[in-house]
Amino acid sequence: MPKLWNETIEQHRRAVRDAVVEVTAALVAEHGLRGVTMSRIAEGTGIGRATLYKYFPDVESIMSAWHERQIAGHLQELAALRDRPGSAGERLTAVLDAYALIQQRRHGHDPEISAVLHRGDHVDRAERHLLRFVGELLAEGVEAGEVRDDVSPDELAGYCLHALAAAGGLKSRAAVRRLVRVTVDGLRPERGPVRQITSQGRRGI
Amino acid sequence: MPKLWNETIEQHRRAVRDAVVEVTAALVAEHGLRGVTMSRIAEGTGIGRATLYKYFPDVESIMSAWHERQIAGHLQELAALRDRPGSAGERLTAVLDAYALIQQRRHGHDPEISAVLHRGDHVDRAERHLLRFVGELLAEGVEAGEVRDDVSPDELAGYCLHALAAAGGLKSRAAVRRLVRVTVDGLRPERGPVRQITSQGRRGI
Repeated sequence: MPKLWNETIEQHRRAVRDAVVEVTAALVAEHGLRGVTMSRIAEGTGIGRATLYKYFPDVESIMSAWHERQIAGHLQELAALRDRPGSAGERLTAVLDAYALIQQRRHGHDPEISAVLHRGDHVDRAERHLLRFVGELLAEGVEAGEVRDDVSPDELAGYCLHALAAAGGLKSRAAVRRLVRVTVDGLRPERGPVRQITSQGRRGI
Repeated sequence: MPKLWNETIEQHRRAVRDAVVEVTAALVAEHGLRGVTMSRIAEGTGIGRATLYKYFPDVESIMSAWHERQIAGHLQELAALRDRPGSAGERLTAVLDAYALIQQRRHGHDPEISAVLHRGDHVDRAERHLLRFVGELLAEGVEAGEVRDDVSPDELAGYCLHALAAAGGLKSRAAVRRLVRVTVDGLRPERGPVRQITSQGRRGI
């Protein structure tokens, strides 16, 4: 039965791939990107170097695969929060809070590793996905009267994700919570007549 | 009179340096970083190649000097807005609006050039300076009762600068104005009882 055989091979390949990615992430976390070689990864995974090269050309590509998984996991986590019961505003706050925590953790990474990880197309794709995801949730909030409607959900999504990136510099959970609170306050509708900024004589807040 | 002589030399050197930086920035804007060589810069400035190398080792270092000047210019611009008459809130909004416009212009740059420019220590220094600068203005706003006091000015400064970085993706002046409005709305005091996010059962916005 060739079909079963193919499935078995496919499963085996996936298992090897997963193991390589896990082992590499653990090694890089311990020794840094420069301290990890393909030989060391092969050894850690219990496969030959030649076999390893059939899966990945270099350490960076393994870390890229690892990063893609991390991102996919984060998006799933955020989608689960979006799909929980509650008002649009509640679910939006939960999503933004979780996103801020992800940003905070992310900045614990070695900057060299981050630079390598953020080179790929998958990062751009994930960012666009996230903008759309948050934009849709904001649009729901506008519908429900829980989010301001004088600025488009797309622009508000850009504002949210940028503002919450500030979590990268924060040390405590409490500080992240405060950042989310401030960011969400910028989204509220009906905050009294908003005075415009004009090009001559800008007006106060 | 050796002192005068030294001053004259110093003036001359500064003039050459300025000319090199200006010519290089113009050439890079036109031809991109890879399209510009030291020979071309020497030619454009009207000096010999050997002389040019006495001033700068390569094109990147010239662009770095150009970038430092740009940043210094921006910081001066923001300081001038801070020092204008008006309430703390008005001056803060004017500063944040100008900062958002700088962010918007900056993103018109070639990403390759941006990567080179943002490598230097001077960028970290400028970011710290800016955080302190905006933090002080926010503290003034808190004093005046125009800015919320439930989050420290330092944390609010991080929020502002991150949120306004979203201007990099905006196409119009009007969109930048909206971003500033939303960001500033996050800074307002007394927006009704702020409901806390708790780890179980997060609450709405």
